[in-house]
Amino acid sequence: MPLLVMKFGGTSVADLDRIRNAAQKVKREVERGYDVIVIVSAMSGKTNELVGWVEQTSPLFDAREYDAVVSSGENVTAGLMALTLQEMEVPARSWQGWQVPINTTAQHSAARFESIPRANLDQKFAEGFKVAVVAGFQGLAPDGRITTLGRGGSDTTAVAFAAAFEAERCDIYTDVDGVYTTDPRITSKARKLERIAFEEMLELASLGAKVLQTRSVELAMRYNVRLRVLSSFEDTDETSGTLVCDEEEIMESKVVSGVAFSRDEAKITLVTVEDRPGISAAIFAPLAEGGVNVDMIVQNISEKDYEDHPGSVTDMTFSCPINQVERAKKAMEDARRAGTIQYEELIVDTDVAKVSVVGIGMRSHAGVAARMFRALADENINIKVISTSEIKISVLIDRKYMELAVQALHDAFELEKTA
Amino acid sequence: MPLLVMKFGGTSVADLDRIRNAAQKVKREVERGYDVIVIVSAMSGKTNELVGWVEQTSPLFDAREYDAVVSSGENVTAGLMALTLQEMEVPARSWQGWQVPINTTAQHSAARFESIPRANLDQKFAEGFKVAVVAGFQGLAPDGRITTLGRGGSDTTAVAFAAAFEAERCDIYTDVDGVYTTDPRITSKARKLERIAFEEMLELASLGAKVLQTRSVELAMRYNVRLRVLSSFEDTDETSGTLVCDEEEIMESKVVSGVAFSRDEAKITLVTVEDRPGISAAIFAPLAEGGVNVDMIVQNISEKDYEDHPGSVTDMTFSCPINQVERAKKAMEDARRAGTIQYEELIVDTDVAKVSVVGIGMRSHAGVAARMFRALADENINIKVISTSEIKISVLIDRKYMELAVQALHDAFELEKTA
Repeated sequence: MPLLVMKFGGTSVADLDRIRNAAQKVKREVERGYDVIVIVSAMSGKTNELVGWVEQTSPLFDAREYDAVVSSGENVTAGLMALTLQEMEVPARSWQGWQVPINTTAQHSAARFESIPRANLDQKFAEGFKVAVVAGFQGLAPDGRITTLGRGGSDTTAVAFAAAFEAERCDIYTDVDGVYTTDPRITSKARKLERIAFEEMLELASLGAKVLQTRSVELAMRYNVRLRVLSSFEDTDETSGTLVCDEEEIMESKVVSGVAFSRDEAKITLVTVEDRPGISAAIFAPLAEGGVNVDMIVQNISEKDYEDHPGSVTDMTFSCPINQVERAKKAMEDARRAGTIQYEELIVDTDVAKVSVVGIGMRSHAGVAARMFRALADENINIKVISTSEIKISVLIDRKYMELAVQALHDAFELEKTA
Repeated sequence: MPLLVMKFGGTSVADLDRIRNAAQKVKREVERGYDVIVIVSAMSGKTNELVGWVEQTSPLFDAREYDAVVSSGENVTAGLMALTLQEMEVPARSWQGWQVPINTTAQHSAARFESIPRANLDQKFAEGFKVAVVAGFQGLAPDGRITTLGRGGSDTTAVAFAAAFEAERCDIYTDVDGVYTTDPRITSKARKLERIAFEEMLELASLGAKVLQTRSVELAMRYNVRLRVLSSFEDTDETSGTLVCDEEEIMESKVVSGVAFSRDEAKITLVTVEDRPGISAAIFAPLAEGGVNVDMIVQNISEKDYEDHPGSVTDMTFSCPINQVERAKKAMEDARRAGTIQYEELIVDTDVAKVSVVGIGMRSHAGVAARMFRALADENINIKVISTSEIKISVLIDRKYMELAVQALHDAFELEKTA
């Protein structure tokens, strides 16, 4: 029997009506001949309520007990979804993490999958059950305590089940109808992609596209699980949404698939830093310890050699989320006081945004960067920092030009047209 | 290490402040040198919310899924209680039913205990944990599904743990401060009992006293678990509340310990029923099948022998809760149509109440019934039905005299005085 994994997020199961709506979609796949594993999140708001209680009770909470409390929202949805399916005469059974079992590491609140043995669910399918409803986001530690996977863990649960059960596809039902070339609120020319490669989706997810959690895309890529993102709130069929898949499944790919952006960036420059081996480690180790997520890094090539700085010196610039600027400043000032780094000045620019173009086609096409910089130059947008990967080019620009830059790049790479 | 079981009901853990208050009481017992097993209910209202969702989803719900959903409220409280104790520097760990494990039968929503192996909790106590917080009301079926014990099951969980772990005592914290000779709202002379025998408590519970669930008292009696009922909302010490215990622990017992009453009773009389072997079964079997909880039964001794009824005939009277009268009428009319019973008339009296006196002292004292009937006669209260057990006498009277009857009996047996 072919098998599908279908995942419904918190807004898709927010109340009994929405659970019924989701169950209808499951029933349709059963009627098409699939066995289905349904992964459910907690009803929206429930997990936040539980987290709030834990944090109020114990600010430095024991992660074991946090996991025991916070995982309970998914259990409720799993049972209600199984009941709803039964009412529609679809034989269904709910499964909590320990019942499957979903074996994970003991890293509470951030556990990773170890194994998902198939025996228990396979037996139920063999008995005639058509649907297994599994509580997402949770697992079982080696010592028998409940674990959770961290926020967004239900997407990852879905992909892990699709891999373990060799599912034909893993359908992620959410509140948007697919992955777009860029945010439709920025340009009406934004187009829904029919397909996107794992690597591209990974870049978009890490650039802030909230459609899929980064870890779930990584896992899908590793096990080659075909992921489909589609809307819970529309009538959907087998061609709906966006398929995230291996690039071999994408026949004709454009050079650039999408334009991503991140509004809340900050740029920090350390002026006149000693240029010596180990200086990068001396700067970035305290930032990491201080909880600063450094994104782009640029070291100026221009050397300075002033009278009062007889050695070789340089400027070091990096970017981070705007709400981490204070932490970054503190980490740098502490390191300067401790004598592990020296700098003349620390300049913070909190009026920047990041804009990126992403596409696997870049690998085989030269000139993407040139075309990108030309498009920005034509709009008189100054580029402050550049960083590139194999399939991505990101630039930091003044925030006030962000929308304009996205629109200009969307036009320049003709993303409104299909390949 | 001596061990205590402490159980907190829904109102005692209704919010984070109350959980903290309950945790203080646990901490005090730990400081006195006890290991403690804490049994918690769901925060009040939570279980009703979950039951509502299940019933809305599926009116004829699958009890397995009902149990999976409804048990989650206790899991939340158990985790929050463990966190609260940790904040107070009491080493504590939460336990869900499957983790202990609490092995039960597979009767979902009404499961019964099979066994509670001690190994897992004993190991944690040996590691230095002082408190095990166990989610009440739930267990694990032989096939690995979650069960629940039915309403009030947390009391029963507490007693079962006290029996399995040979606890010194099982303290049931609730919203009243003990067991009274009668409801203080009926007479201000009502007095809190220091001790009451299991058998008496059992009669009072089955007569509608809501302090303890009948099943928990049965279990306590069978395993001789000393139960103490006391208030969550007052400062309590080792002499607080009421101890429910073996009658041997009660030195000087009064003849009557308490007066119970039940307001919502109805009396049904079948007039001119054929008096033959098997007639009782023919009447009460369809009532039981129809879900009618028959309480008192009286068969008139007076025989009738009319012309049109050549055989021996009688009248049959029984009582049941007032909200089951329609069911009872339907069961009787169906049986008459089916020809399994005959009667001339069915008379319903919905203006009755039941008043009972309970006391183990009755066994060794004659004249309790006479004293009871005399007290009622002195107030001109007519007795409609009488039923007795070894330690209880119940009468059905007009509802308007109920309060008066309770007051008169409380006075007649001098319950305001200690033994």
